Amino acid sequence: MADAPHVVIVGAGFGGLYAARGLARKRVRITVIDRKNHHVFQPLLYQVATAKLSPADIASPIRSVLGKYRNVQVLLDEATHFDLTNKKVTLKTGEALAYDYLVVAAGASHAYFGHEEWAALAPGLKSIEDAIEIRRRVLLAFEIAEREALLQGKRPMLNFVVVGGGPTGVEIAGSIAEIAQKVMAKDFRCIDPTRARVVLLEAGQRILPAYPEDLSRSAERQLRHLGVDVLVGRAVTGMQPGKVLVGDEVMAASVTLWAAGVKASPLGNILDAPTDYAGRVKVEPDLSLPGHPEVFVVGDLASVTDKSGRQAPGVAPAAIQQGKSAAKNIWRSIEGEPRKPFQYLDKGSLATIGRGAGVAEFGRLHLSGLVAWIFWLTVHIFFLIGFRNRLVVFIQWAWAYFTFQSGARLITGRTDLPEGKTG
Amino acid sequence: MADAPHVVIVGAGFGGLYAARGLARKRVRITVIDRKNHHVFQPLLYQVATAKLSPADIASPIRSVLGKYRNVQVLLDEATHFDLTNKKVTLKTGEALAYDYLVVAAGASHAYFGHEEWAALAPGLKSIEDAIEIRRRVLLAFEIAEREALLQGKRPMLNFVVVGGGPTGVEIAGSIAEIAQKVMAKDFRCIDPTRARVVLLEAGQRILPAYPEDLSRSAERQLRHLGVDVLVGRAVTGMQPGKVLVGDEVMAASVTLWAAGVKASPLGNILDAPTDYAGRVKVEPDLSLPGHPEVFVVGDLASVTDKSGRQAPGVAPAAIQQGKSAAKNIWRSIEGEPRKPFQYLDKGSLATIGRGAGVAEFGRLHLSGLVAWIFWLTVHIFFLIGFRNRLVVFIQWAWAYFTFQSGARLITGRTDLPEGKTG
Repeated sequence: MADAPHVVIVGAGFGGLYAARGLARKRVRITVIDRKNHHVFQPLLYQVATAKLSPADIASPIRSVLGKYRNVQVLLDEATHFDLTNKKVTLKTGEALAYDYLVVAAGASHAYFGHEEWAALAPGLKSIEDAIEIRRRVLLAFEIAEREALLQGKRPMLNFVVVGGGPTGVEIAGSIAEIAQKVMAKDFRCIDPTRARVVLLEAGQRILPAYPEDLSRSAERQLRHLGVDVLVGRAVTGMQPGKVLVGDEVMAASVTLWAAGVKASPLGNILDAPTDYAGRVKVEPDLSLPGHPEVFVVGDLASVTDKSGRQAPGVAPAAIQQGKSAAKNIWRSIEGEPRKPFQYLDKGSLATIGRGAGVAEFGRLHLSGLVAWIFWLTVHIFFLIGFRNRLVVFIQWAWAYFTFQSGARLITGRTDLPEGKTG
Repeated sequence: MADAPHVVIVGAGFGGLYAARGLARKRVRITVIDRKNHHVFQPLLYQVATAKLSPADIASPIRSVLGKYRNVQVLLDEATHFDLTNKKVTLKTGEALAYDYLVVAAGASHAYFGHEEWAALAPGLKSIEDAIEIRRRVLLAFEIAEREALLQGKRPMLNFVVVGGGPTGVEIAGSIAEIAQKVMAKDFRCIDPTRARVVLLEAGQRILPAYPEDLSRSAERQLRHLGVDVLVGRAVTGMQPGKVLVGDEVMAASVTLWAAGVKASPLGNILDAPTDYAGRVKVEPDLSLPGHPEVFVVGDLASVTDKSGRQAPGVAPAAIQQGKSAAKNIWRSIEGEPRKPFQYLDKGSLATIGRGAGVAEFGRLHLSGLVAWIFWLTVHIFFLIGFRNRLVVFIQWAWAYFTFQSGARLITGRTDLPEGKTG
């Protein structure tokens, strides 16, 4: 095996993981590099942020996911530079790793559109650490309000402002409204959590802009039913501790969360290739880097338009398909066969809004409410990585469904928000 | 109810929680103050530290535990001072809370015996945050060794040194040896995790000094069987990054953990009462503060010798019994009845060493090995707070038992140990 081609995969999100799986058990050596020791099931991250699931329920150690493949080596490290001429990846620890084939699947992070100072005021949701921080802020806001009501006789307002009406923003807003209405309601004595205001701000003309219009309208209706204020055509113009500026209006915000935009990993910029407005690398139809057929870019970092003219969206199924496709093209090259262009297969879109609420699109079939929600539950339990996770998540959801109690309401880390973060 | 006596309870560990439960539904108002929003089931904290359980499995929101009692108010805050003359508790946020009865159940933290600089080198285990930090260090040590082996061709040594041979030290050492032998073994390619060395250092002449001698010997045998080096009569004399000094010997230590001593909460010192060598408050037989019959001290913060002449140990059952006893004495005083002295009922001791290994003492009945372990499992699942936690923990344990996979192997936070922490 020592003389087998060496495939280095940077990033163990969906793209990287499925690229590794696609080449596992073939005659190649694979090294998967990630900054974290765990793969995160991102579609459920907002459930950790809203205390419905524990971090370990949606994250699996990369070593344990790939452990059964003897030709896969996992390395906890960070790629900092690519030497495309000499085919080497430089690591944060200083060493370099030579490759025959390289798959860059470094993903994306939050985009604040030039307002990086908003990051501390309105965290985004990309990692387990982000989710724990958001959970801390959301739960702490209720505690601070109760403390003020009890000790100072105030009648504090609780306002949660979620910026961005894509699937993540919709899911977070719905989930916060739900815990305020159902879970928190009976735990507090001085405040009434059901009176918490949840605002979803969307700069465009409708939420879920990537969905068909009827489903956007349905999602908005379902959110309003949960008590969420959905405000469309309203862009954030400024942010201060405890406040969000929307045009001329100053909106009070106990907690502000950011779900308004993503930008590709900065690793895309050092790949010496054209990138699009969001920093995504424009790759060839076979997902390889222009001029470097041995380098592939997949997942949220890649910008690819398939032959049907459709740009693959930044969602898990697209990343999975691209990871698999890159693996197949690498193996075709090794075997001396011609490569095939990537073809995105749209399997539909699903978003959940709350208990028994959601929207789903499968081509011409549009579903809303309970049916969409049941679809969502089934698909997400099925695709969760690891049987143990599936079982534990299933139990947690069943428990939450029947008792209106969510299991992971822990505030870890600081219990005092620093001056200037809550207002 | 507004004119009912106000009972303030500081701390929601076992002592505080059971004091609150003992007075719930009686004609008193109760305020429970804690710095955290969750009660921690401390006997299982080491299982979080060694990646067997998730934080939320062993921690329950205090509000949810006490939520059903309408006369209990929970306050996320920290008591910083007691005005015993005017019967007021000062809070960190500056406000003061008046009480008719006060129960101080602030617990204990690690004692480094005058070497506070060791705290950063060898963390102890008292909170969820401690457990997450220990988990991070233990898992990261394997990752760093693999990285060095892969990239630098080294054959790195992995040494885990656990200082202190009480139940916590025994359980952590056994648990680390077990994950190295069973869980990690198949996940790494360049290092052999089964060759990791786990050392348990005890300054006294035997481990588990509070247990009968035959059980100490049995525990030592079971630890050795798991591959743990048990060294007794060996006190730590110094600590440096990556090294532990034991007399003249310098011992390499990838990770050092502290389980050697506890000291009572500093709140004990401001109670204006005599304390013992560990800072525990010497209370009256009815658990009240000398000269202040309206103030009670319970749990790890209290030093009490009952009429049988036995000092109650710093374990969960003693804290539970003291919390209940203080609640009863408060209610007796309100009803105008005479108080009763606290009587410790020793229900036995249990410690687990690994899968199918442990020791148990119930008076003259001494158990070892599988029987002790089954007892331990049953008792701990039974006493876990919250039905959901019991179910999830049961599944996690069953899963780990049958698959040798533990579920919560997440490294969160920094993945680079700062210079000077690993050596």
